[in-house]
Amino acid sequence: MSTNIFNINDSHRLQTKQLDVPPRLLLGPGPSNAHPRILQAMAMRQIGHLDPAFLKLMDEIQELLRYAWQTDNKFTIPVSGTGSAAMEACFANLIEPGDKILIGVNGYFGNRMVDMAGRYGGEVRQLNRSWGEVFTMEEIRAGLEKHRPGVLGLVHAETSTGACQPLEDIGNLCREYDCLLLVDTVTSLGGVPVFIDEWKIDAGYSGSQKCLNCPPGIAPLTFGERALAKLRSRKSKVANWYLDMTMLMSYWGSERTYHHTAPINMNYGLREALRIVAEEGLEARWQRHREVSEFFWKGLRDIGLECHVVAEHRLPSLTTVKIPEGVDGKTVQKKLLNEFNIEIAGGLGELADKVWRVGLMGYNSRRENVVLLLKTLQTAIGVGD
Amino acid sequence: MSTNIFNINDSHRLQTKQLDVPPRLLLGPGPSNAHPRILQAMAMRQIGHLDPAFLKLMDEIQELLRYAWQTDNKFTIPVSGTGSAAMEACFANLIEPGDKILIGVNGYFGNRMVDMAGRYGGEVRQLNRSWGEVFTMEEIRAGLEKHRPGVLGLVHAETSTGACQPLEDIGNLCREYDCLLLVDTVTSLGGVPVFIDEWKIDAGYSGSQKCLNCPPGIAPLTFGERALAKLRSRKSKVANWYLDMTMLMSYWGSERTYHHTAPINMNYGLREALRIVAEEGLEARWQRHREVSEFFWKGLRDIGLECHVVAEHRLPSLTTVKIPEGVDGKTVQKKLLNEFNIEIAGGLGELADKVWRVGLMGYNSRRENVVLLLKTLQTAIGVGD
Repeated sequence: MSTNIFNINDSHRLQTKQLDVPPRLLLGPGPSNAHPRILQAMAMRQIGHLDPAFLKLMDEIQELLRYAWQTDNKFTIPVSGTGSAAMEACFANLIEPGDKILIGVNGYFGNRMVDMAGRYGGEVRQLNRSWGEVFTMEEIRAGLEKHRPGVLGLVHAETSTGACQPLEDIGNLCREYDCLLLVDTVTSLGGVPVFIDEWKIDAGYSGSQKCLNCPPGIAPLTFGERALAKLRSRKSKVANWYLDMTMLMSYWGSERTYHHTAPINMNYGLREALRIVAEEGLEARWQRHREVSEFFWKGLRDIGLECHVVAEHRLPSLTTVKIPEGVDGKTVQKKLLNEFNIEIAGGLGELADKVWRVGLMGYNSRRENVVLLLKTLQTAIGVGD
Repeated sequence: MSTNIFNINDSHRLQTKQLDVPPRLLLGPGPSNAHPRILQAMAMRQIGHLDPAFLKLMDEIQELLRYAWQTDNKFTIPVSGTGSAAMEACFANLIEPGDKILIGVNGYFGNRMVDMAGRYGGEVRQLNRSWGEVFTMEEIRAGLEKHRPGVLGLVHAETSTGACQPLEDIGNLCREYDCLLLVDTVTSLGGVPVFIDEWKIDAGYSGSQKCLNCPPGIAPLTFGERALAKLRSRKSKVANWYLDMTMLMSYWGSERTYHHTAPINMNYGLREALRIVAEEGLEARWQRHREVSEFFWKGLRDIGLECHVVAEHRLPSLTTVKIPEGVDGKTVQKKLLNEFNIEIAGGLGELADKVWRVGLMGYNSRRENVVLLLKTLQTAIGVGD
């Protein structure tokens, strides 16, 4: 076969420059700035997804993830996609058509859970709360009592509202009602205390691009024994091939059976991210996030700005700041981006145009970033100091 | 909330060394070695997935993908996962429960198509051929005539067999039968001629880690007008949230609506990969793959080894080499890996233990790699020269 018989169409043969992007300080809801060590790790040369050296690296990632999540769960792996893929993996694997599932909706990601659960045939029931509030134990007990779901889905750290759902005792409650507890820890893992085992969370997922500071494209997932039992007792095939954990188990387990090609360099990056967490230690890391955010919250008060979430349930990694009367939030965001290369985000859903969302995540959780943001925010809003 | 009330479990706090991996030459079925320029691009600092600079980069990727695939298709995007995710995206979006779908199975990836199509409720019919053979026009016409499917799924470059399915006239045939043509171009895009528009392919997908030499974790997908019409006329929601193209269209289209966080650095890498393709030009690139593989095939003959696929349908990017009588294929692979840092793979399914799979893809398609592989293969097999 000769190839020069072809008439190649050059109309889309775009001339492009070498990649360059502005030096942004990413203080929105994520991605956060990648830690330079992580970017360096990601540029490591390629090896195969079944190479003994890669299999060793997979083991290390699993172990470091267990530390970050405080779990002994054997089945703790990174999913080959962004956080939403790990979220979907939970619903695809733990729900069968007709299963009843109860979801706490107090923000954007609760709604996403509802959408996903429905696509897998779940009979979805909702608990609802205003965006920025959290559910009480009593509300959750009443919901379990009324709906008797097989799965309760909650968002630990609502990236859309900045609220942190207390979880300490909900696992026990779920066991009482023979229900799995599924928790979104996208914006908490690595920045805010999460105890998968102590809190009796049966299934959890997260993202890489928040408090772990690894670029997006790989997403932690953990299933405990009760979740695995549900998976083993399924009557139907998982309705999603790519995220079918019954198949992925053989790749991440001792058999090492090929399923799909793992995103090698994203795994390099995640390993480095988790190494950094292990080096700093969880306690120091959580304290740092807490202290830097308290510093930020105090600074906001000092320039006359208010937080949307009450102090008790405020998330250290993501703060929703009320946009003052008469200020156009989007104009301020644009000014910060265009004049100072600082990214913050606006609100979603109920909070659209009402709040700014500010993330101080992982590597970005530093006092100098707070000082810079407060000062430029003040300038952009046009309030005197 | 004070965090030092917590008892942190340090049992999984693994001490790890700085990332290092062996300097492998990846001559298996993929991943291929990443081009150094691509790794460098991937280490570029982070920006947000809604940053104007990232939106511009998205446009560039789309345009460069159109060139590589030779298509004007507006909806040409990278999916946020590996090749299997893009494959699943095609089935999830183009099939509704009860739809009849005909799949050509002459290798591992045809079987995967069958599995995926079934999970989305498709009534799957198969055309079958031995692994390493291709389908004739007459067989395909007879299959369309008999089954009257809504979608015909074919693998252009079967990575498991090394066979290249001729596609030139199948698009016309599919239109005659009012059927969509869905094609796997994972191991052809960027290495072997593919003409989405000229061949009237309605939906195509690929991987990044084969002839494009970008690490795995992002996967091209293109839908033509007929595929989009099917998508628009769906009666049911796409049964997969993460891969729901009706939602992703708004992110990759002019609305730029947030769906999920794009894998920023994988997009950096893919852009660089596609830039390299555009710089070299498709014709030169296809010629190079063809010439280097001809050189390899001649070299195999010279040392007494045979190809599994007949010359006419042999894939330049992936060659299946018959394992000689009395030779243990796995032992040879291990020797190559452990003594010379060269990765090749064994066969799958029908071809397990019968062939080695050798990839000469993109950046790896170079004469010096062929010389080295032939010489070390000879040594590992233990045949004299």
